[in-house]
Amino acid sequence: MKTPIASGHLNRRTALAALAGLPALAGCLSASAEAPTSPVAAPLASWNESASKQAITDFLGRVTREGGSDYVEPAERIAVFDNDGTLWTEHPMYVQLAFVLDRVKALAPMHPEWKNKQPFQAVLDGDMTALAASGERGMMELVMVTHAGMTSAEFAAIVSQWLATARHPRFKRPYIELVYQPMIELLGYLRANGFKTFIVSGGGVEFMRPWTNRVYGVPPEQVVGSSIKTRFEMRDGRPELLRLAQMNFIDDKAGKPVGINEYIGRRPIAAFGNSDGDLEMLQWTTMSAGARLGLIVHHTDAEREYAYDRNTIFGRLDKALDAAVANNWAIMDMKRDWKVIFPFELG
Amino acid sequence: MKTPIASGHLNRRTALAALAGLPALAGCLSASAEAPTSPVAAPLASWNESASKQAITDFLGRVTREGGSDYVEPAERIAVFDNDGTLWTEHPMYVQLAFVLDRVKALAPMHPEWKNKQPFQAVLDGDMTALAASGERGMMELVMVTHAGMTSAEFAAIVSQWLATARHPRFKRPYIELVYQPMIELLGYLRANGFKTFIVSGGGVEFMRPWTNRVYGVPPEQVVGSSIKTRFEMRDGRPELLRLAQMNFIDDKAGKPVGINEYIGRRPIAAFGNSDGDLEMLQWTTMSAGARLGLIVHHTDAEREYAYDRNTIFGRLDKALDAAVANNWAIMDMKRDWKVIFPFELG
Repeated sequence: MKTPIASGHLNRRTALAALAGLPALAGCLSASAEAPTSPVAAPLASWNESASKQAITDFLGRVTREGGSDYVEPAERIAVFDNDGTLWTEHPMYVQLAFVLDRVKALAPMHPEWKNKQPFQAVLDGDMTALAASGERGMMELVMVTHAGMTSAEFAAIVSQWLATARHPRFKRPYIELVYQPMIELLGYLRANGFKTFIVSGGGVEFMRPWTNRVYGVPPEQVVGSSIKTRFEMRDGRPELLRLAQMNFIDDKAGKPVGINEYIGRRPIAAFGNSDGDLEMLQWTTMSAGARLGLIVHHTDAEREYAYDRNTIFGRLDKALDAAVANNWAIMDMKRDWKVIFPFELG
Repeated sequence: MKTPIASGHLNRRTALAALAGLPALAGCLSASAEAPTSPVAAPLASWNESASKQAITDFLGRVTREGGSDYVEPAERIAVFDNDGTLWTEHPMYVQLAFVLDRVKALAPMHPEWKNKQPFQAVLDGDMTALAASGERGMMELVMVTHAGMTSAEFAAIVSQWLATARHPRFKRPYIELVYQPMIELLGYLRANGFKTFIVSGGGVEFMRPWTNRVYGVPPEQVVGSSIKTRFEMRDGRPELLRLAQMNFIDDKAGKPVGINEYIGRRPIAAFGNSDGDLEMLQWTTMSAGARLGLIVHHTDAEREYAYDRNTIFGRLDKALDAAVANNWAIMDMKRDWKVIFPFELG
């Protein structure tokens, strides 16, 4: 496609890029020596006027105003986003868990011992409570056990095939249609203001990379997540990466700042999450000198999506909700602050 | 600085960017929706006309020619570079090893047991042969033992301070002045042609990140390397990342394709190395469908730099030299192909 570089005023161009969701141009601006000196006309069309929207636009105004005391060089404008519950729906269960369940059921006949072994038994019995009790690690164990033994390329193909056919039990749509329109606008708005946007998720990194660029405009190299170990080997003269049944890294809770430092190597200035798994990422991002933005997506809309916080199995928001108040993080009220939840509502 | 976006023709602009070494604009173009459809006027000013230069320009012509059978989308133009011996001097020893030696000597009085324990004894005795015999892992162990126990921010400050004062024993210059001018031109040339350039080094990632953007135009988030584990903790109400005395990842040999997949998440189409530690990275990059470029930096100039390959302690080039011939990788002859080695030769 043709870049509008030749035409129009920079800020108007970047606003258009954000609205059109052109990750390429947005990425360009994020790396460009010339960054907007003031936030572009807010393309947060699906956000109602609210304290959370105000916190976002105020923050962008401060860090992009050249000569201002809070100005941040474009290269240092790093924003990190949790995925499950922050960018797409995590109820009635994590999407990756739905993927895992399908794989476990398909492999069960070859593993009779799973009938009496958790967390496999819970999967085969459909006991979601027992399954959730095994926690993020239990889910990662299921990913590991059911997803090792093939190459990374083969696994990516399995993920893509599943996403093309699986449907959400309530909305009856592909999971990648159950992403949050206001957050996609926010991703574009940040990129249009010179930010580099990263996903930092407890989910498997090789489960996300096949589709995050298409859906969020976040390329594979800007996705941080949990992983199992891989081994390089030559097979019939061809190099392959084999996925091993061994955990490599769990990118959750205190693991998120560790993953940010290891995989990104810069300290973010903005972080977006929705659960206690994001607490340390929000602390690491916001508890330092200079203008910082922390925002919590609070699920308050049982009618259009789901309503949950302190007492839920998936995406519990308890400690982080108290910390949000104590640390002056913005709390985005889904029911009150978002005009639409999903892109398909735009028709 | 001001970007020349407003002025000039795109290809001329990108050529200027490459020559001027404007990583920002080059990065911009690498993410831009409009990539050059043919390679820019080769800014490889320090390269003599040679088979290796021809291999580079031919490859770029093929992957950037829209409509051509070898055309590669800009987003997929990933180039990976080894660091030691490929981008800067690794003799008489790895730069990071010189850094480690200084730290070991400084800490030795507090560790009397080091006198009789390898690899520490070798450091204190100045026995480079015994030290090298401990291999990359031994060096990483020294890094781990001597560099754990402080925060990541404190470690970055130690590295920056050391680089500002240390001098190369032969050239009597700061190590960051002993980078290869022709490779810096190549990095810029690739970025000007829509490539995203990554470092994939056996060296410590937190040893490289404080300076790679300034010296190579490669930002921290595009540096992959070896690492020790870190732990997140709140100290006096402030979040910190503490470096632990435990290896996390060794990004060498078969670890390089593993690290590329884990940290970048895309398979490169061009790889540049100089030793057997780069063999698997070159195999992973070049042994797949489509136009691929593998290049070996062959150290053949004892007068201007160093001459070594099969029989050296640091940066041994043996298996990879045979593989280069067998796989048709370009072999860059430093003495014959480079007009200048270091930037300071340009005066």
